[in-house]
Amino acid sequence: MASQWETTKRIETLVDGIFAIAMTLLVLNLSIPQLTGSVQDANLQVVLMHLTPKLFTYAMSFMLLAIFWRVNHGQFYYIKRINTPLLWITVTWLLFVALVPFSTSLTGEYGHLQSAQIFFDLNLLAIGLLAALIWYYATEKKFTDKKLSLEDIHKIRKINMLLPTASLLAIGLTFISPSWSPLAYASIVITERFFK
Amino acid sequence: MASQWETTKRIETLVDGIFAIAMTLLVLNLSIPQLTGSVQDANLQVVLMHLTPKLFTYAMSFMLLAIFWRVNHGQFYYIKRINTPLLWITVTWLLFVALVPFSTSLTGEYGHLQSAQIFFDLNLLAIGLLAALIWYYATEKKFTDKKLSLEDIHKIRKINMLLPTASLLAIGLTFISPSWSPLAYASIVITERFFK
Amino acid sequence: MASQWETTKRIETLVDGIFAIAMTLLVLNLSIPQLTGSVQDANLQVVLMHLTPKLFTYAMSFMLLAIFWRVNHGQFYYIKRINTPLLWITVTWLLFVALVPFSTSLTGEYGHLQSAQIFFDLNLLAIGLLAALIWYYATEKKFTDKKLSLEDIHKIRKINMLLPTASLLAIGLTFISPSWSPLAYASIVITERFFK
Amino acid sequence: MASQWETTKRIETLVDGIFAIAMTLLVLNLSIPQLTGSVQDANLQVVLMHLTPKLFTYAMSFMLLAIFWRVNHGQFYYIKRINTPLLWITVTWLLFVALVPFSTSLTGEYGHLQSAQIFFDLNLLAIGLLAALIWYYATEKKFTDKKLSLEDIHKIRKINMLLPTASLLAIGLTFISPSWSPLAYASIVITERFFK
Repeated sequence: MASQWETTKRIETLVDGIFAIAMTLLVLNLSIPQLTGSVQDANLQVVLMHLTPKLFTYAMSFMLLAIFWRVNHGQFYYIKRINTPLLWITVTWLLFVALVPFSTSLTGEYGHLQSAQIFFDLNLLAIGLLAALIWYYATEKKFTDKKLSLEDIHKIRKINMLLPTASLLAIGLTFISPSWSPLAYASIVITERFFK
Repeated sequence: MASQWETTKRIETLVDGIFAIAMTLLVLNLSIPQLTGSVQDANLQVVLMHLTPKLFTYAMSFMLLAIFWRVNHGQFYYIKRINTPLLWITVTWLLFVALVPFSTSLTGEYGHLQSAQIFFDLNLLAIGLLAALIWYYATEKKFTDKKLSLEDIHKIRKINMLLPTASLLAIGLTFISPSWSPLAYASIVITERFFK
Repeated sequence: MASQWETTKRIETLVDGIFAIAMTLLVLNLSIPQLTGSVQDANLQVVLMHLTPKLFTYAMSFMLLAIFWRVNHGQFYYIKRINTPLLWITVTWLLFVALVPFSTSLTGEYGHLQSAQIFFDLNLLAIGLLAALIWYYATEKKFTDKKLSLEDIHKIRKINMLLPTASLLAIGLTFISPSWSPLAYASIVITERFFK
Repeated sequence: MASQWETTKRIETLVDGIFAIAMTLLVLNLSIPQLTGSVQDANLQVVLMHLTPKLFTYAMSFMLLAIFWRVNHGQFYYIKRINTPLLWITVTWLLFVALVPFSTSLTGEYGHLQSAQIFFDLNLLAIGLLAALIWYYATEKKFTDKKLSLEDIHKIRKINMLLPTASLLAIGLTFISPSWSPLAYASIVITERFFK
């Protein structure tokens, strides 16, 4: 009975809403410096200078969320039907997406510590694996558009392994240098071109 | 006169928006640990370890809100018309939905205390009862799709009693163990299968 | 040239978004009590008891925002065109709508003080007057549906005076008792019936 | 393959969501004054008086965001297609839009200091330049509606220079008076009329 209303439209609305909010909430990590005493411009300049790594973290997480959002839109362009298991896989994926502002704040504050970076990487690993699972499940169940060729389905499955691989690489890099480990995610941008 | 614009589309937009925000706001309960002195990785590991119950509470509330959102979409798939009383029942239901991030933060902080858990349970009880009332009112007033059989209407009415029952069970369990009382909500997942 | 894209759809999306967020942000005023020392259930019960006026303020503001949202949907059901001045009147109205969570937090904290209540009342007065101006401007410029009778237009203009009148009444009542002055808004519910 | 789903609808949803949230988050900068001791109405009046510059900053940023939102809607009324580079230009533009609540809080707190104002101005400069780039790129690639004349395209390109010019003017004015430098943005409203 419930299956009658199993279109993808309503989950897409929730996805769009959660992304818009998570992306905007990232800015709350940039707290206003509370200066005491007679505040002078030189003091504020120093404070703003120290904000630079946090601004960088903000920009990176904003862009990562935008990438995930885009990947999801690409998937649901082809996915035409949804059932209860697929709905819950997508909701679990959203749970980790909504966690990104917190993980980001952790790396923004303690980016030089390994456990902060690993927390962030595990968050992205979960997002990547669940996104891959969405596609795997939907294509196995033949919920996708019939016009989509088998070749394309398998190509996308391979692309879906990029983010989890980058996360594992980042976790490995934390043992060398926590602060520089997020550079592993830049490898996605470089490697993606080979799949096109 | 006002009845002319009584379609359900506009309330559905508000529902989707409030759910997306409430679900994303849950993450604000995971405050970044403020460590002082020379922070070392071992310190942060301890802090992150202590975050585990809060992360669990976050995941549970996220999933509960997703369930409520889904129930509402199921209801409004069949509800075709809305009038002023039904609008206000739905808005009151939303009022308790938007309260979930606060109730969650309370159990995340004081989950071992009975009054925190009862506050949370009463919040969910109100959500469950109002959701049941939306369905009861809409079906009594024949606002639902004509293709929906009387049998289905009554089946859904019974399913609607699951959450309030689980809430009452959880309240009862707080007298034995506040910390474990939320397990009562797991009973929904188990019992729901018998109604299908 | 710009007039070509002057439909009302895009402003309605912004209105819905801002309302959903403002209504959900209200909950942030309910801050989690930070208890120190060995916390016992009796302590938390006292704290939760003291939350009652804040919960009441939360519920009232949530309902007031829902009323404003509904009034706006009623208006834009009939308003078919928008021009630059009407867009800016609506945006100014939204500016005061988005201010409600702050005004509410002020009355939640200092509800017994006259200036807190007057701040809140002036906020609602601005919302009421701007909502009335939206309708006045749109009907004067004949942007509304042609099927709407002149009689109905004037009836709605009168109803639009209810909220500003209630705000002025509430301001007057603050001189007698700040804490009870919000009851003036209950008069809307009572008086509205006479216009139907 | 990916190009098949390159319509503009999905990016418009994200834009609307982020604007609604950023505009509503501005209010969080208006923190509730925490008064200690026996609070009297005279104390609160003084505190509210001191809020005036923050309220002014809130209103200005709300209106600026509304202007940017409107400009974007004007652009995407004509832009019919989107490709990967245009998507990323738009996302980068959104990154700076979502930063406005933070920049605003900085000027609200330290508006009399030059570096706070310059931070705010650089934020708006980035928004203005990226909005101009969106239009430039989309028109160069002929993604815009064919009915749009070359004359109109170039007219809009000129209008797009207004905000960046105002930002540069504001930066210049910070060397004379940081507090009054935001008045430079008022020049947009005045100059815009000459282009119509």
